[in-house]
Amino acid sequence: MRPVYLDNNATTRTDPAVVAAMLPFFSEHFGNASSTHAFGEHVGEALKKARKQLQALLGAQFDHEIIYTSGGTESDNAAILSALETQEGRDEIVTTTVEHPAVLTLVAHLEKTRGIKVHLIGVDRQGRLDLDAFAAALSPKTALVSVMWANNETGTLFPVADLARQAHAAGALFHTDAVQAVGKVAIDLKSTEIDMLSLSGHKLHGPKGIGALYVRKGVKFRPLVRGGHQERGRRGGTENVPGIIGLGAAAELALAHMEEERTRVKALRDRLEQGILQQVSHTLLNGDGDNRLPNTANVAFEYLDGEAVLHNLNKAGVAASTGSACTSGSTEPSHVLRAMNLPASALHGALRLSLSRENTSEDVDRVLEVLPDIVARLRAMSPAWAAATGDASAVADHV
Amino acid sequence: MRPVYLDNNATTRTDPAVVAAMLPFFSEHFGNASSTHAFGEHVGEALKKARKQLQALLGAQFDHEIIYTSGGTESDNAAILSALETQEGRDEIVTTTVEHPAVLTLVAHLEKTRGIKVHLIGVDRQGRLDLDAFAAALSPKTALVSVMWANNETGTLFPVADLARQAHAAGALFHTDAVQAVGKVAIDLKSTEIDMLSLSGHKLHGPKGIGALYVRKGVKFRPLVRGGHQERGRRGGTENVPGIIGLGAAAELALAHMEEERTRVKALRDRLEQGILQQVSHTLLNGDGDNRLPNTANVAFEYLDGEAVLHNLNKAGVAASTGSACTSGSTEPSHVLRAMNLPASALHGALRLSLSRENTSEDVDRVLEVLPDIVARLRAMSPAWAAATGDASAVADHV
Repeated sequence: MRPVYLDNNATTRTDPAVVAAMLPFFSEHFGNASSTHAFGEHVGEALKKARKQLQALLGAQFDHEIIYTSGGTESDNAAILSALETQEGRDEIVTTTVEHPAVLTLVAHLEKTRGIKVHLIGVDRQGRLDLDAFAAALSPKTALVSVMWANNETGTLFPVADLARQAHAAGALFHTDAVQAVGKVAIDLKSTEIDMLSLSGHKLHGPKGIGALYVRKGVKFRPLVRGGHQERGRRGGTENVPGIIGLGAAAELALAHMEEERTRVKALRDRLEQGILQQVSHTLLNGDGDNRLPNTANVAFEYLDGEAVLHNLNKAGVAASTGSACTSGSTEPSHVLRAMNLPASALHGALRLSLSRENTSEDVDRVLEVLPDIVARLRAMSPAWAAATGDASAVADHV
Repeated sequence: MRPVYLDNNATTRTDPAVVAAMLPFFSEHFGNASSTHAFGEHVGEALKKARKQLQALLGAQFDHEIIYTSGGTESDNAAILSALETQEGRDEIVTTTVEHPAVLTLVAHLEKTRGIKVHLIGVDRQGRLDLDAFAAALSPKTALVSVMWANNETGTLFPVADLARQAHAAGALFHTDAVQAVGKVAIDLKSTEIDMLSLSGHKLHGPKGIGALYVRKGVKFRPLVRGGHQERGRRGGTENVPGIIGLGAAAELALAHMEEERTRVKALRDRLEQGILQQVSHTLLNGDGDNRLPNTANVAFEYLDGEAVLHNLNKAGVAASTGSACTSGSTEPSHVLRAMNLPASALHGALRLSLSRENTSEDVDRVLEVLPDIVARLRAMSPAWAAATGDASAVADHV
């Protein structure tokens, strides 16, 4: 049986068309972009095209607003550190409790080592930002506001265009980690006030090891990685030519499939979610109703360990996640779900099912076929479930 | 006619065997290393193997002494910034005038913005380090010594093992940018006192966009890129799985070809060099006699513009460089050759021919067939040549 991949928020399959676009640039047109000889001949043109492809996906006004990086984490780090260097006299950061570790780890480090004040704005039970607390945290000391476009675990979308306007009103720069949003929802940066945006190739069927940081024209930028003149002196290091070209091809494909994401993929996700909720009692749906990525389902089974569900799904040929890939393997509940104040009974029972355009109706059928049984079986062996529901006999049967 | 590639110090062709090793990890085994499901199943094992392959090439004692990065520039930046953070009470850097921009650009920035004192140690006419000045610059204030293993333009090798001992005697850390050395000369880190070493995949027939920083066990390290738990918390960001696996495969190939590099490739380089010197008058050989990389030839034609030579070589199907790829296109003479105090007559006439195991005897024949004529033709049109040699008629003939 074809295995079912529902962990697309962790990483996606590199589209074979993307790999095909990259291939000539490993061993045929392998010159550096800056080389003047024949081996670099096609490279400059191909890179220009790739930049335009990414620009189109982002709705960026200028192609040189894109700085290529090694991925989303580097982009996030570069954006935050640059803002602190360029925003003189401002030493506070406003961000959220549900950001990716690429933001949270760095700001915690800056707080500890540089005395930067970090405002971590909380979210409600649906993962929606506390807008009053956000507004209250902004001040003439705010150097940067960094709020993700979409949460990686629940898919909840944040009102980044509006938050950017508020940040600007306070004289702060606005950065968004859009690693989960780019390729899944329409983005048109030129119609927003967003100053910086991070993205990662491997989240949109592009390769790993390549990402980008959008920096709006006119926004001062200080490089994280210094060296040669690449990227107009904003990011040193030989260009990752195959990676950049792969990201461009992935961007073009994502744009072409955007409507499908909004319709077919969302319909699959909705059917998956509703099917689970109908068949499995004591299940919570995590995230903000309709204001979510079209591909992400996050459910929590009360009185269960999500890792056990995951393990049994794996055995049934279904790949998913309990939360962000960066913390999987750990037994701590996700910082996102904790921030959302999930009831203790559900906090360890989360399951993230993240789809992509590569998923089919049969994939959803398969999950709906195996998941309810897995949950029932595990609950039948769970003392917590027995204690909560009074179904002690079931435990005895299965022990 | 098959074009001749002699710009291997800029970048190398990714070995088709390396590409083949990477391919399954784009669209088949595409899971993250940390994923517990089937799609990440083979990834962990493959990454372990790749790490061992690179460890073997470096002669590192422990495989976890390797931190994967996006390339040599990031590695250099990470090493330098980490040393400044961990070496409390020390705020001086000792390095050389002939380092790569990945080091020089960063230390210049640190000098300007953080008041770090930078000692730039000079070289002699053969590109050899001024050892007296080096010893004199070391002090209890030295946080880090950073000296390249081999120069990218001339191939000159620096006595890094000895310099590392001297650095340690002064209580400083020792870092080497070995981007040009790794894969070309034998390296056995465990028999040295080197604390940190930078390398880049695409200089040894591996892919672009991947590199590594060796950090000796026990040496304190502060990450440049902060995020998830990847690389034992020393470099955040989803692992570039195909890149890491490609670098491992490239390392294994480099180790297998090391003896060939030392013998066949060196013999080709020597024949190329001697042929040029015999056929073209007023030509200087740049670099340190035998104490050089086996693959690098750097010659300077007096009273000529190297860019013009390069252009004509291109037309004849030979790819080379005037110096480091990062500054090619600029009309400034190379900072390395300036530091070596080349005579003014030769400073603009440099040509770097850098070989690899993929070059053949026919490649050398081809260069020796076309290059002397190109130089003669250009000199015949050169007023500077006419003025210097009294051969004014030639200029008149060709203008």
